[in-house]
Formats: sequence, C-alpha cells, structure tokens
Amino acid sequence: MSKKDTIPVRVFLPEEKNPKFYYNLMADMPNRPAPYLHPATKQPVGVSDLMGVFVKDLAEQELSSERYIEIPKEVQEYYRMYRPSPLHRAYQLEKALDTPARIYYKYEGQNTSGSHKLNSAIPQVFYNKIAGVKSLTTETGAGQWGTAVAIAANFFGLPLDVFMVKCSAQQKPHRKAVIETYGANVVPSPSNITESGRKILSEDPECGGSLGIAISEAMEAAMGRENTRYVLGSVLNHVILHQSIIGQEAMEQLQMVDEYPDIVIGCAGGGSNLGGMIAPFVRENLAGRASSRIIAVEPSACPSLTRGVFAYDYADAACICPIAKMYTLGHGFVPASIHAGGLRYHGMSPIVSQLYNDKLIEARSEPQTRVFEAGMLFAKTEALLPAPESAHAILAAIDEAKRCKETGEEKVIVFLLSGHGYFDLGAYQNYMSGNAVDAQYSDEMLKSGLDSLPAA
Amino acid sequence: MSKKDTIPVRVFLPEEKNPKFYYNLMADMPNRPAPYLHPATKQPVGVSDLMGVFVKDLAEQELSSERYIEIPKEVQEYYRMYRPSPLHRAYQLEKALDTPARIYYKYEGQNTSGSHKLNSAIPQVFYNKIAGVKSLTTETGAGQWGTAVAIAANFFGLPLDVFMVKCSAQQKPHRKAVIETYGANVVPSPSNITESGRKILSEDPECGGSLGIAISEAMEAAMGRENTRYVLGSVLNHVILHQSIIGQEAMEQLQMVDEYPDIVIGCAGGGSNLGGMIAPFVRENLAGRASSRIIAVEPSACPSLTRGVFAYDYADAACICPIAKMYTLGHGFVPASIHAGGLRYHGMSPIVSQLYNDKLIEARSEPQTRVFEAGMLFAKTEALLPAPESAHAILAAIDEAKRCKETGEEKVIVFLLSGHGYFDLGAYQNYMSGNAVDAQYSDEMLKSGLDSLPAA
Repeated sequence: MSKKDTIPVRVFLPEEKNPKFYYNLMADMPNRPAPYLHPATKQPVGVSDLMGVFVKDLAEQELSSERYIEIPKEVQEYYRMYRPSPLHRAYQLEKALDTPARIYYKYEGQNTSGSHKLNSAIPQVFYNKIAGVKSLTTETGAGQWGTAVAIAANFFGLPLDVFMVKCSAQQKPHRKAVIETYGANVVPSPSNITESGRKILSEDPECGGSLGIAISEAMEAAMGRENTRYVLGSVLNHVILHQSIIGQEAMEQLQMVDEYPDIVIGCAGGGSNLGGMIAPFVRENLAGRASSRIIAVEPSACPSLTRGVFAYDYADAACICPIAKMYTLGHGFVPASIHAGGLRYHGMSPIVSQLYNDKLIEARSEPQTRVFEAGMLFAKTEALLPAPESAHAILAAIDEAKRCKETGEEKVIVFLLSGHGYFDLGAYQNYMSGNAVDAQYSDEMLKSGLDSLPAA
Repeated sequence: MSKKDTIPVRVFLPEEKNPKFYYNLMADMPNRPAPYLHPATKQPVGVSDLMGVFVKDLAEQELSSERYIEIPKEVQEYYRMYRPSPLHRAYQLEKALDTPARIYYKYEGQNTSGSHKLNSAIPQVFYNKIAGVKSLTTETGAGQWGTAVAIAANFFGLPLDVFMVKCSAQQKPHRKAVIETYGANVVPSPSNITESGRKILSEDPECGGSLGIAISEAMEAAMGRENTRYVLGSVLNHVILHQSIIGQEAMEQLQMVDEYPDIVIGCAGGGSNLGGMIAPFVRENLAGRASSRIIAVEPSACPSLTRGVFAYDYADAACICPIAKMYTLGHGFVPASIHAGGLRYHGMSPIVSQLYNDKLIEARSEPQTRVFEAGMLFAKTEALLPAPESAHAILAAIDEAKRCKETGEEKVIVFLLSGHGYFDLGAYQNYMSGNAVDAQYSDEMLKSGLDSLPAA
C-alpha cells in the first residue's frame, strides 16, 4: 500500500509552533507589485502618503520588503484562542471520488467570524489601538469581514462603525446581529450620515447599496472624524502579509505527516485567503526547492484574473483610494449577483496579480452551479458545510483529484477552506430548488468595466 | 506563581487517544434508574419490549449495566472527522473576572450540527443501518438534533423524515435549510401526514406545534411504515452512554495538563450533554478517587430538578413512550417560551435524576437574562458565541469563579460548552434590545403539570 493511510484526519500543530512572524512574499517575488499611484497626482506613493489612510505600522507593512515581520505579542496571544487552525485529511471525499490522490484542506472557519478574516482584523485593530486611534470604520458585503473586525475591535476596546451593504443587511439579519452582539454599530449603506451616502439616496432613495458605496462611506466617515481610521479586509499587501500565517501553519502541518503538496488551491476574490495560503509555497517554488502547481479559482461571473487586464485601476468605485496595478475588470464593472458575495470584486490583490502575470500561479473561473455541486458533495462526505466562496477551491480540488483517477497519479492536493456556510443557507436552498443560475457574462459588461479604467 | 500560566489555550488529544469504548455510568451507580414501565400495563419493560421502539443494539444499551461498550469501528471512523473536540483554557474570561480560579471548557460546537448531538446521532443511525432498517424518523425543536441526524443519516445512506415544530421551522429557516442540505425531509409539525397531526390540525388549523406533538408524529410515522425506526436525541440511557465520550476526552485532556476539576458544570435540558460530560467524573467520585462538585444548570422557566418531583411520568406528551422515573414537572407542564429551546423539556434523564436524588450532583436554576449576560461576557472575552443553552453552564462557571475571587481559592472549574449560537442570533438581538424577559413561573403552571402525572 503506497498510499499514506494512517495519517490523522485532523493534524494539529502544538501551540508553541504557532507562527511568530508574518512571512512577506514581497521579499522573494522576482517582480514586486508596481507602486501605488496617488489618485489625483498619479505619482507613486510612499509610506508617508499611505499614512493619510493607514496608521504607520500598517502603512510600512504595505510597502515593506522585509522577509519576516514579527507578530506582536498581544496579537499572538489572541491567535492562541483559535489558532493554529486544523489541517484535515479528506478521507471521505477521497473515498467518494475513488481517487488515488491524497486531499488535504486547511480549515479557517472555526472561529466566530466564520472565516480567515479574523487573522487580519486582529493585527489591524491592534496597530490602530497602539497608534492612539480612538475609533474605526469599515465596510462589509457578505458580512464576514465586518464580523471579524467587530470581534477584534470589541476585544481591544475600540468603537466601530460597520457600513454594511443595505440589501445584504436585509438579507442576512443574522450577520448584522452577530456584529451588533460584539458591540459594533451597523450602518446600512447607503446611509444619510455621509455625504456620498446622501448623494446616492437623493438620486435613488431605494438604492440597495454596493461594496463600492460602502467603502466610500466608511472612508469618508473615518476621514471626517477625529482620530478615526478605516480598515480593509482584502486586496492590500499588509492583509496578505497577515494571512501568511495560514500557509505557514499548513506547511508545518504537512511536514508533520511527511507530505508536500503537488497542488495548492484557493478561491480568489480580493486575494487575501489565497495570498496568505500560497505565500510560503510560492517561496519554496521560487527557491527551487519545490515545484507545486498553485491554482486560483474565481467565479466565472467575476473573472478578474482570467478575463481582466493587468493595468492600473482604482480599488474602489468612488476613486478615492490609491490606484493599484492589478488584474481588473474595471472599477465600473458590476458583476452579476451570485451567492459567493465575497468573490464579487472587480480587481485582484496586486501581489496575486503580479504572481499570475509572472506565470507563477494558474487561474481558472467556474460557474456557480458547478461550485454548489462541489460544495454539496463536500458537505455530505466531510460533514462540514462550506461557504460558497470556499466551495470554489473545493471544486478545483475535486477536478484535480478526478484527473488523478484517470492518470493513476497519487498527487497530494491541498486546498484552503476559508470559511463555513452556516450563514449561506439561503444560497444552498436556492441552489437545491434549482434557482441558482449561472450568471452570464456579456461582452458589453466587460467593455463597460474596462472603459472605466483610468487613462494610462 | 502558583497559577498554571503556561497551559495551552486549547488542549488537543492525539487522534489515537480517541475513546474506543463508551463508558456506562449505570455500571457504577449505587442506585440504578428505576425500570421503565409499559405505558399501558405499567409493568417493567425488558429488552424485547423496548425492541418495539429501538433496534436490538440500542435496546440492549438502554438497559445495559456493562461498564464499557465498544464503539463500532465505523462510528470511530466517523468520530475522527470532528473528534476529539478541544478543551479550552478560558484565559481571557479569567482575566475579565480577575479570578484565581482556572476555568476550562470542553467545546462541542465545532461540527456542522453545531452541538454535541452528532455524538449520538452517528451510532444511532449506524445501529439502525446494520439492523436492516430502511428509513428513519425523528423530531426536532431547536433544530440541533434534527441537523445531527440528517448529517448522520445522509452519511450512512438512510432516508430521514424530521418532524420539526412548525413555529420553529418558520422562525429558524436556516435550521430547516441545513437539514434539507443533508437530504433529509423536513415535515413541519403538526402535519397532515399522521393521524395525530391531522387530529390537532382539525381542532386548530393554525397550531404552531410543540415538541410533544412532533414526537408523537415521528413515532407514529415510524410505526406505520415498513422497516422504519424512530431515533431520539436526549433523555435516554443509551444517548447518555454515547455522550460519555465527551467526559472521557475531557478527563484525558485535563490529565495532559496535570489538572483535575474541583467543579464540573453542564446545562441540563433532557440531560444528554450533562450526563455525557459528568459520567467519568462521577465514577471517580464514587470510587473515592476524587471529590469534584458536579453542577447541573437548568432554566428557571423549566426547573425539573430544582422544582419538579421524582416520580414516574411519561417522556412524551402523547403518552405512548414507556413511563420513566425521573425528576419531572409533569408531561402536561408547558414551559414559558424562552430562548434556550433545547432546555424546555418537562422531565430529566432517569440517570441524571437518580444521581440528583442520591445527592451525587447539585442543581440550580437560572433566569434567562442572567444567562444571556453571561453568554455575552463569554462571547466578548473568548471570541466564541455560545448557544443560549450552553450559556447556562457559562453562568454557573462565572458565579463559581467569582466566589473563588472572594475566597482566594485557585479552584479548577470545567464546564461543557455544548454548542455555538450562530443560529440563535435572533435571541441575542432580542436580549440586547431589552426584550428577553425572565419567564415567570407560576404555582398554577406547576400544579397543572404535576396534575398530569400518572397515578402511582
């Protein structure tokens, strides 16, 4: 028997192996992301410019090329409450697929935020706290980031306003409730407490909101209040830096069972879970010590890597953030409404974009009916209900495992299960009743998005 | 420093330490529960009588006094997917309370059923499967048991009808959805597919249902179909037997960090999580090797141990189950509507009742506003949102830890956190908006319940 059949179902790192440092992939990338440009002057921005938006520690991390950045003791202490997260061997899924592949998943859903988002919320709130910031704002779409910041802000004692996309707040009252349980204030966006919100409401009082509007409101609210800062949960370099603890733990856990992945898979929206998971594996590839295939999976309704262009674009719909070079469908691109709300972002993290442009990672896009089908198979075999976002990674893992069945290869497939689907049951019901359609993606939609790109 | 400050926040048992046997407390109890009586003849029932309701393995377990009963390999295999569950040290809660006590909690919410219920659903479905049963029925109130059976029934390939209290199915559409995701059929109860359901609907077409009605329908449906059995998630001896893996793991985990509890705490509804948690600790007390205080915490709206009588009563409202000797408020007792739906049962497991009657455990009852207050403090300090049921145990742990602060005692307090509160956010919102009232419990309610007891 060549297959490793005695590996535990769940591999736990001992607490003392918890990462002490964030790993910064920018230290090792052959080409670093192009510099951010100021939205007005179009000149490259430095740390001091970014400090208009972020506190110093985070602004420095955003542009840092230091390889290892120490995790503050207070943050390590907090991580201990829910980390290291488990690495699971998917024996039952393997059996159902009758594949010679060995499938592992790193699971980030076992904290009350329900996803990996807490990993970055904690240090972001912490750095703001020690910088003397007195209150925070953020936005949330699907609700996982808002929940994560609420939990962290409560812990460190900072008041928080969460601008939550209004239709999402209405559709997911429980997400709103958990944010409020942690003492944060939920502001359905568009609201009448910001200029940008009032402007939109005056044009369309019934507007259900969008992530772009919520970002504008949260940023405006932060800039208009004393000692208040805005925090963001994806896309940025410092977010991926924080998420690198996922990949570091996964690599240690795989070593504990004497495995190394042939394939590493993550879903890709803004790029934070993917970037954090793959960082150390990309490092090993770059150093010539490994040659894992690395696969980003995005929804076909919002395929920034596979159908977008690699260009400078605004990170936000209101065009007030610095301009970033990334794969983008254009900040004017409005994706069809799909259930993986966390993957409906027009662009992609500059780090992930650069890796893809340099052919260091692969990408594929998938329609949501295939994604839900994979999510259901996983839920039934592994007894764990995945978030629709995470199910994108499951689908690719299943597809690769099926390929192994054809070829007879005993590949080691590792994917990141970024969160659970307990708050997405409406989406599952919709799928089961046959109502989850595959959003068609028209050339006109693409054109209107790309037309919104700033002039080169 | 006398306090053990270097204990990991989360203690994980290695997989090979997973219990291989269920521990049967009935083997060691000085007084075993009184025999069940047949509902019609009032004569003691044996295994063959119980086989009218349960398959042979479960009927035997219900009456067994064997100390250790082997866990079937297939069930062990399934447990490996989510067990051993972690034991947490509640450092942050301790800090908030400024207590010299060391507080630990065993957490059973990290599986998709959201609670300990899966521990018994798996063996119950398994034993039915190998006995050749072709389909199952059950009932669910709060939804955790229905979810657990749905997950297990799907895994072992048995069709399942879940009779779900109608108002609960309406109030908790997500609970209904997760049950359906696992392929089970949810029947809002009262339904028109059973005689008892039709009878109730003809009298009150708008009836929102009750656990008692749902049990009647599920049992009737099972008895009326070929090769179909009914499974129950609490109260019974074999359920507590299965749940003994919780206590066994907890004891091993405490040994790993060189601790033994001065106080063991669990919430008590039907008694399944409490009974499973305390079983091995009661054994050690009885053997004279330890002297832990053991505390059951029930809602003051449904205080079977603290205000009920120790008498023979029906386990179900329809009076078709065997009669059991237990602490009971009378099967006609209708508790006020509180948010800990899982604790609204008129009686208490015969095992737990006998232990209480023999003064081997303590009991206390608590109003829900105090319970929610404790749950909120726990959520904010430990970053984990508890189920309202489990928050009863948290409250007692906090009260005991506060007492330690007064006396300066460094007691070791261990409680069972039986499940998460992600599906109870409506309840938390209700509490936060000041609308969770402490259900008053009148002498008339008690009298009408006790009047329903069968003649001695």
